[in-house]
Amino acid sequence: MATAWLLSPPEVPMQLHIENRQKLIKSLCHASSTPLHGFVFLQGGNEQTRHDTDHTEIFRQESYFAYLFGVREPGFYGAIDIASGKAILFAPRLPAEYAVWLGEIKALSCYKERYMVDMVYYTDEILKVLNDEYQGTGKPLLYLLHGLNTDSGNFSKPAEFKGIEELQTDLDTLHPILTECRVLKSYLEFCLIQYANDISSEAHVEVMRKTKAGMKEYQMESIFLHHTYMYGGCRHCSYTCICATGNNSSVLHYGHAAAPNDKTLHDGDMALLDMGAEYHCYGSDITCSFPVNGKFTGDQCLVYNAVLDSHDAVISSMRPGVSWVDMHKLAEKVILESLKQAGLLVGNLDDMIAERVGAVFLPHGLGHLLGIDTHDPGGYLQGAERPKEAGLKSLRTSRDLLEGMVVTVEPGCYFIDALLLPAMESAKTSKFFNRESISRFRGFGGVRIESDLYVTSDGCVNMTKVPRKIHDIEAVMAGAPWPIKKTVVFENGSS
Amino acid sequence: MATAWLLSPPEVPMQLHIENRQKLIKSLCHASSTPLHGFVFLQGGNEQTRHDTDHTEIFRQESYFAYLFGVREPGFYGAIDIASGKAILFAPRLPAEYAVWLGEIKALSCYKERYMVDMVYYTDEILKVLNDEYQGTGKPLLYLLHGLNTDSGNFSKPAEFKGIEELQTDLDTLHPILTECRVLKSYLEFCLIQYANDISSEAHVEVMRKTKAGMKEYQMESIFLHHTYMYGGCRHCSYTCICATGNNSSVLHYGHAAAPNDKTLHDGDMALLDMGAEYHCYGSDITCSFPVNGKFTGDQCLVYNAVLDSHDAVISSMRPGVSWVDMHKLAEKVILESLKQAGLLVGNLDDMIAERVGAVFLPHGLGHLLGIDTHDPGGYLQGAERPKEAGLKSLRTSRDLLEGMVVTVEPGCYFIDALLLPAMESAKTSKFFNRESISRFRGFGGVRIESDLYVTSDGCVNMTKVPRKIHDIEAVMAGAPWPIKKTVVFENGSS
Repeated sequence: MATAWLLSPPEVPMQLHIENRQKLIKSLCHASSTPLHGFVFLQGGNEQTRHDTDHTEIFRQESYFAYLFGVREPGFYGAIDIASGKAILFAPRLPAEYAVWLGEIKALSCYKERYMVDMVYYTDEILKVLNDEYQGTGKPLLYLLHGLNTDSGNFSKPAEFKGIEELQTDLDTLHPILTECRVLKSYLEFCLIQYANDISSEAHVEVMRKTKAGMKEYQMESIFLHHTYMYGGCRHCSYTCICATGNNSSVLHYGHAAAPNDKTLHDGDMALLDMGAEYHCYGSDITCSFPVNGKFTGDQCLVYNAVLDSHDAVISSMRPGVSWVDMHKLAEKVILESLKQAGLLVGNLDDMIAERVGAVFLPHGLGHLLGIDTHDPGGYLQGAERPKEAGLKSLRTSRDLLEGMVVTVEPGCYFIDALLLPAMESAKTSKFFNRESISRFRGFGGVRIESDLYVTSDGCVNMTKVPRKIHDIEAVMAGAPWPIKKTVVFENGSS
Repeated sequence: MATAWLLSPPEVPMQLHIENRQKLIKSLCHASSTPLHGFVFLQGGNEQTRHDTDHTEIFRQESYFAYLFGVREPGFYGAIDIASGKAILFAPRLPAEYAVWLGEIKALSCYKERYMVDMVYYTDEILKVLNDEYQGTGKPLLYLLHGLNTDSGNFSKPAEFKGIEELQTDLDTLHPILTECRVLKSYLEFCLIQYANDISSEAHVEVMRKTKAGMKEYQMESIFLHHTYMYGGCRHCSYTCICATGNNSSVLHYGHAAAPNDKTLHDGDMALLDMGAEYHCYGSDITCSFPVNGKFTGDQCLVYNAVLDSHDAVISSMRPGVSWVDMHKLAEKVILESLKQAGLLVGNLDDMIAERVGAVFLPHGLGHLLGIDTHDPGGYLQGAERPKEAGLKSLRTSRDLLEGMVVTVEPGCYFIDALLLPAMESAKTSKFFNRESISRFRGFGGVRIESDLYVTSDGCVNMTKVPRKIHDIEAVMAGAPWPIKKTVVFENGSS
């Protein structure tokens, strides 16, 4: 290996989850005009088997449960007594054979210590414990998680257990408030996302260095996965790796089972690699674009710099209060300006924007909230409407930025036949396209540049540390060192 | 890398699935006294999202569907007309946005060509096509998949689609016959399992070479995953990697989320690595045990050779007609003999066997069928009873061997407190244990040696090509080359 990598997986402070729980209780109480009694009550995820078989996928905790409790094992429940703030975990009662097949059966006190909660019981004791601990009048009241995920369109499933029908339940209060807690990251959460960014940035650099014509796309994926696991302790990625080269780089979510990163890399092609590791469920989401052979052509420079200028312009403008819709429009405008300057587009820029020509080249949203989920929830507040215009309607959030948000900035410029050909035929938009120039880019694919940004009180911090300037990319691919300064994680007050 | 690896991922011949379908139709017709009309009708797997989010795991096809059709994309259905043998695939009708987000929308003819079927339609045409193609009288009859998986205890889910209630269905006939087809591997299936074995064997050797005290267990997992994906094109493993060192090696299914291969390797510890890649859904299942520091101690030799002798004795005895229960008993007996010879056990061997002392050291079954599932179905024929004795009751099959089966041979010898301590206290068995000798092995963990065997007409072929003898393991770990002869895959008649 060319570089002595500096990172190693940090210990995760469970204080992070104590703070998350405290923040939730404070928010719940703040949102109510009268004192609240009862329990926040969540069900953790369960291990899944594949179809009828006993094949189990590696378990990864449900995200809301991970946020509040940080528990890595399946089959748990968790409660927080709103009045006292006390946290209770409920662990599955494991059969004696577990010790032979799956490992030592831990005492409940082990979980209490590891997860820094106030009490731990077995899941078959839930009803009794909640009745015993309840401080209010009448039956214990459970605040359950039920609400819409605006990215998937799915609803979270409220906790279920035997006997829950004997208690009172509230399905409306918890979801929006807990979701909003997740939107604004604490310092310790920031540190974990920074660590995921650091190790993933290193891994992207490692991939750049090893990329050569003749390889398969999935070999870039394998190098990334290996680096983040071997050196970073990241067993999971935030999402399926997108390793697209040539024309595949215009397929926004390439890499899935029907398009499994299986093309051979060709000299002269661009590569678009969208890959991010997660650590203790906190993720990263990074895209690098570069030529397979390590040297940008003139046309590759043109498209790449159009996207980089867009990326940089957005980052320079980000601060609390700024509208994300405006940021998307800014990103789009910078790209259109570059394409016009290069002679691919002709005519008046405002007219192009009004006719949504930007969405032909940038059909996805500029970026999204990032945290325990790659598409972290909370992008649309209850009742907020999605924009309807092409491109803007794909935005995963339309909110104004707030200090503490982590958002991805990921402008792209793609040559997608399914969008480009109709736009070049349309009566309203055909006049903007220089067909001859654009024809050079058939089969080019696309470029995306994606970084993760933490919004501060007066701007933002770029958490992603990969070479971005063409000069730097070419140098790193030719073997130059890439100095990733070690990010101090979890030390007092600075990162 | 010390070795120039010889393997590269082979093209998968779809002829394999044509043969699988032909074999099924032949078996179905053979099992019926009257000519059958109707369709074998299966539903492929669907992509799953995690909880309420839009996070998708990488799709892996449902195993029965993979067997008959080899389709890698989600959302398909498949039918085989029993009378004509014609195969029909039904593909999902993808929305126009698919082209922008997920890739080119393929013409149905592409699937017809790739999967070598007779017809391809859309899933919304199933009812019409089945009515049109049906050659029998009355309503079309569908043979659906419904039956017990004897490893998981779960039932396969029969196909569902809108309008199925208008057709006749049979839930009983298909499952046992299709399962039995999967039990006996064709030559092309053998080749795929051999390839998965070859690349996984290489990867095990690579891990052995790189293992050092101070590493984390998951780093061995990462090296394995990287080797099989980078050089073998294997995106999936057959099962979660078990990378256990020290006392963890007595946890039979270590490596899951609650015991995630996260211990530091110590000088003097044994490592037990149970890892196998899959290719085009066909798997491998290999365990190597070796000392972390590359040199066996006397006690490590003792336990290792007890297990290796057991492994070799079974393989020498395997041939069609041999009872797998007898093989398990043989494996157990060889281990007990060695432990007695080494002074860990005392007394009469037959008495020990009668009191099930073997199951204290070898609590799991000797091996299982292997194919598209790691625990391939068909281990118990309908109505067959499981053995009830300790150890034997864990057998995943009690059948007699047949030519064409692929089975794992995986004896082990473990020092598991949860089994050993009660047995040493028990009135019936305490007399067999030499407490002083055995006390040396507290915290030792265990040894497992696992190979994949193909049963031939007069014996078996070991498909797994890793160093097994202590001398070979020590040499490979010290840097000696390990000559894995390239296995010619898919060439005419030989492997």
